[in-house]
Amino acid sequence: MSNVVLLAHGSGGRLSHDLVTRVFGAAYGNPILARMDDAATLPMPPGSRLAFTTDGFVVRPLFFPGGDIGRLAVCGTVNDLAMSGAQPLALSAALVIEEGFAIADLERIAASMALAAREAGVEIVTGDTKVVERGHADGCFVTTAGVGAIADGVDISGANARPGDVVLLNGPVGDHGMAIMSRREGLRFEAPLASDAAPLNGLVKAMLEAGPGIRCLRDPTRGGLATTLNELAGQSQVTIIVEEARIPVRPAVRGLCELLGLDPLYVANEGKLVAIVAPEAAERVLAAMQAHALGRDSVAIGRVEAGRAGRVALRTTLGAHRVLDMMAGELLPRIC
Amino acid sequence: MSNVVLLAHGSGGRLSHDLVTRVFGAAYGNPILARMDDAATLPMPPGSRLAFTTDGFVVRPLFFPGGDIGRLAVCGTVNDLAMSGAQPLALSAALVIEEGFAIADLERIAASMALAAREAGVEIVTGDTKVVERGHADGCFVTTAGVGAIADGVDISGANARPGDVVLLNGPVGDHGMAIMSRREGLRFEAPLASDAAPLNGLVKAMLEAGPGIRCLRDPTRGGLATTLNELAGQSQVTIIVEEARIPVRPAVRGLCELLGLDPLYVANEGKLVAIVAPEAAERVLAAMQAHALGRDSVAIGRVEAGRAGRVALRTTLGAHRVLDMMAGELLPRIC
Repeated sequence: MSNVVLLAHGSGGRLSHDLVTRVFGAAYGNPILARMDDAATLPMPPGSRLAFTTDGFVVRPLFFPGGDIGRLAVCGTVNDLAMSGAQPLALSAALVIEEGFAIADLERIAASMALAAREAGVEIVTGDTKVVERGHADGCFVTTAGVGAIADGVDISGANARPGDVVLLNGPVGDHGMAIMSRREGLRFEAPLASDAAPLNGLVKAMLEAGPGIRCLRDPTRGGLATTLNELAGQSQVTIIVEEARIPVRPAVRGLCELLGLDPLYVANEGKLVAIVAPEAAERVLAAMQAHALGRDSVAIGRVEAGRAGRVALRTTLGAHRVLDMMAGELLPRIC
Repeated sequence: MSNVVLLAHGSGGRLSHDLVTRVFGAAYGNPILARMDDAATLPMPPGSRLAFTTDGFVVRPLFFPGGDIGRLAVCGTVNDLAMSGAQPLALSAALVIEEGFAIADLERIAASMALAAREAGVEIVTGDTKVVERGHADGCFVTTAGVGAIADGVDISGANARPGDVVLLNGPVGDHGMAIMSRREGLRFEAPLASDAAPLNGLVKAMLEAGPGIRCLRDPTRGGLATTLNELAGQSQVTIIVEEARIPVRPAVRGLCELLGLDPLYVANEGKLVAIVAPEAAERVLAAMQAHALGRDSVAIGRVEAGRAGRVALRTTLGAHRVLDMMAGELLPRIC
């Protein structure tokens, strides 16, 4: 086999078949994928609704501290499912590859996707590969989709927050975005930055098992924590107040943000979640989060109020309030 | 709003939100999409299994006689679901857009996706938009995924063909590929060529309602009819013999194929299906196909034999047999 991807690998003919079998079959082969039918078929767990989501990934560089485009694609889609309260049932992966891309890099991406899927306890059951001419893409774009099952009785939506609810966060923000930026700018730090990319479905499962009262879950990816809080405040038609001093940010992230003139609250995360929970559930859910490997640094960062619909305010360390708006422009292109 | 796509439209911030609302919300808005949650949630019909599939589309040009990348993306995914015997429940759409792409073209693609989805009786319930710098993609790539429901008792797979089965085809082959090529080469014909892109789930429903006996369904897209027959012969470990004289090809398609030195049996289709059916079901299923708008020209083109596993033979008009191999190289890059 050629050691780079050729246009013919996207033809749908023998070379496509070989590429799929040797790269993807080897990395994440499973009985459903091996059937090579046009669609994967799977049983639907009884007593559940279906969750369905998709995300495209164009991150640059493809490989970065703490992850790569493959890990990002799997975690991103697993997390979107988890944020609806679903456990993932199956993933798909569709790649658009630039002619001349190294097969070794493709194998590395496929292996990383397989590993992340294993961490999430899910399999990649269907996929597609297209190849475009040199100069008509940028290495490799990955689009994943996922289906999941939401147990009956679980009702989580960005529109469910109510005044009095508590806002929880599972750890420091800005790691993913700053890991990408440090790599792009060629910066080296004493405390190296690494992406937080991780599948959060296990953490969400532990939170749901802790009992009722979880109203909203959302992963603050592109646009960061500030944008996510704005989305939730808008969907639920409430005001959200967060305490600046309670939002954890690693010193290395804070340092690089200052250097680049960025606000860590607008920087992308790939292993963080915001949970809005009923006041009587807050302590119980927070304890469940802190007991999980991906939630050890979980904190309550604020609360929901009746005030103006869609408004997010930050109470600064000096006690003043400032409006935390949705991100307006392009902070960091191709961060995911 | 700017009349071209900016990098900031992919930021996940306010501009992303505006683009999604104004372009995609306007074209295919529905209550599930309007919730703006990370995943769409939907009920699963009882008494069914789940079908799940994805496809990426990089066709060039984006607009061509009989369709565009949006129509192709919706039909391609609906058809992959239909080929497993499923009726579609919901679709997702993830776009990678090149900076500078015209918003008007994006609106045209979104409208076309909405129309094709309506024809298939399905909705686009979740999506994603990424933007890459000018020169790092080629206008717009679309990746769709779909979920569908397969009624209990329906068991269709490329591995189910048995000796004695009959091979059915719902009309002339090569229309899609040659419509793209005619547009690329700037050729004009008296009888204009148009892509056959169409959602086939209605046709499949009519076929399934005609009674039992459908073993395999497959849409001969990239690689054409010959490649699809090879896949089915390989998966089922049988020989397939087809009659050259029975395979319909429009004169304009045959003419352009001759001009370009192509074999229409290897040219892509986007509205065709191959059905392998039990001998006792053949007449009944064929009649159901011919009674449907997308199957009026349906014909029986061959049969399944016990012979060598994975072999496809064409009985020519002169009565000789020649092996019809899987497509080896890249016939027509970026045909879908």
